[in-house]
Amino acid sequence: MPDDRHAPLDSLTPTRRVDVTRVSGQSITRTTDVAAAEEPLDVRLHGKSFAVIMRTPGDDKALAAGFLLSERIIRSFDDVGAIEHCKHPDQTKAHHVVDVYLVGGAASRVPAMLEQRRQVIANSSCGVCGRSTIDELLGDLEPLPLDPDAGEVSLDVIRALPDRLRARQSTFDQTGGLHAAALCSSDGDILAVAEDVGRHNAVDKVVGRLLMAGSSGRILIVSGRVSFEIIQKAWIAGVPIVAAISAPTSLAVDLAHAAGVTLVGFLRPGGLNIYAGAERLATV
Amino acid sequence: MPDDRHAPLDSLTPTRRVDVTRVSGQSITRTTDVAAAEEPLDVRLHGKSFAVIMRTPGDDKALAAGFLLSERIIRSFDDVGAIEHCKHPDQTKAHHVVDVYLVGGAASRVPAMLEQRRQVIANSSCGVCGRSTIDELLGDLEPLPLDPDAGEVSLDVIRALPDRLRARQSTFDQTGGLHAAALCSSDGDILAVAEDVGRHNAVDKVVGRLLMAGSSGRILIVSGRVSFEIIQKAWIAGVPIVAAISAPTSLAVDLAHAAGVTLVGFLRPGGLNIYAGAERLATV
Repeated sequence: MPDDRHAPLDSLTPTRRVDVTRVSGQSITRTTDVAAAEEPLDVRLHGKSFAVIMRTPGDDKALAAGFLLSERIIRSFDDVGAIEHCKHPDQTKAHHVVDVYLVGGAASRVPAMLEQRRQVIANSSCGVCGRSTIDELLGDLEPLPLDPDAGEVSLDVIRALPDRLRARQSTFDQTGGLHAAALCSSDGDILAVAEDVGRHNAVDKVVGRLLMAGSSGRILIVSGRVSFEIIQKAWIAGVPIVAAISAPTSLAVDLAHAAGVTLVGFLRPGGLNIYAGAERLATV
Repeated sequence: MPDDRHAPLDSLTPTRRVDVTRVSGQSITRTTDVAAAEEPLDVRLHGKSFAVIMRTPGDDKALAAGFLLSERIIRSFDDVGAIEHCKHPDQTKAHHVVDVYLVGGAASRVPAMLEQRRQVIANSSCGVCGRSTIDELLGDLEPLPLDPDAGEVSLDVIRALPDRLRARQSTFDQTGGLHAAALCSSDGDILAVAEDVGRHNAVDKVVGRLLMAGSSGRILIVSGRVSFEIIQKAWIAGVPIVAAISAPTSLAVDLAHAAGVTLVGFLRPGGLNIYAGAERLATV
């Protein structure tokens, strides 16, 4: 486990280097990969937190301006007196905060807006609001134990999951518009599968299905990309292995390390990447 | 404009039929297409709204159970005394509400949980909380006018957008993990482009960039799928044409009709689908 796994989320570039175990045919190599950076941006109105957005760093002021327009807090840029990165002397923190000051009628509505948003900030399901390190994300959850009794999962089982998932995706073929998720046993048997326009919903559906049946799964497979929220949901549900057809974000990789979750990405014919928890997989 | 565009969101199937103008080479046909259904589910705790989730209908009780686990409202299914669709006599409404009743220690925490969530429901950026028809989504926003002075946009311009967007996606090639969005002129010139792990962020970034410059765009192109929120953001920003590489959801199509937004989907070599507002495009 790298020493910097709890490092502050201080990258300002849109990508981050992550360690990866690359499996290609019979070849297994330790290397580094480039992941899309995912880090929280605190948008403040008149010095107070209005919203925390999980974003890829870059264009932060434009993101804040566009977000405030979408939320109908501002009607034009004339409502904005100043928009700038926080001037906090600790640049690690300052780069994840954009301060916005409104003028005219918009300024006079700020106290009421902040009061309305107060609870949103405190209770958002994003789980990272106002937090800037993985340590703070951990909260009172313990990392998932390795559980040696459960045995290692064969890479052949992991490799077979995409075809098994696709065979059960009934709606996708019709619409091209749905995310899919499945919970599987250690042998790769699909225990529950769901499709939804929302990738988080598809995970909640399969977790909920097994929860209602009093059981659980060992492997979660998802059809798309993996953001930190997917890892968070697997962690809370006690599912130790997450496999994705596509790429993980940087924060998904960080959180997988901290949560003791095995994370496999780019699960494609011919290869796959192991970003965390390789010890649960039979790689030799 | 179909008479049922303001119909209640009463489908219980995971797909919906939508009208579409299909352009394939020189051939233009009016037909119907199947879109992934996207509709709000109200998850109630002890009879009071706790969260509204935009979801694809189906497995609603499992979705509610998994969501409550992810939110750490329940720790196991033992905390759930009852979970069922609402018994309201109007089935159109009842199928979009799941009532959950907790027992034991979890039940005693419900009033505090509801108070914490109250503001979240009222102020969520989803824009549909507690609303069940497109009429209610409209709020005080007027549909975008056709603006004949702006002229029709050539289909050749639309067809060229994916290549232009891809040529500007610098990070995607490295990570495979980012959504991209761009705002373009009527001639298809890219005025602003952004990439982000969040598809909504990418749109907010390009809207914000032009907002800060005091300008706007005529066409929004996005790299992935289109949910209703993308249409909502275009509407609020006054961008009349949205084009997507991939599929729209049913609610995106409904909202595009209601908002007066032109919606193009499945923008691929050889063809495209026009779901709404074909009158802004030079299809002949």
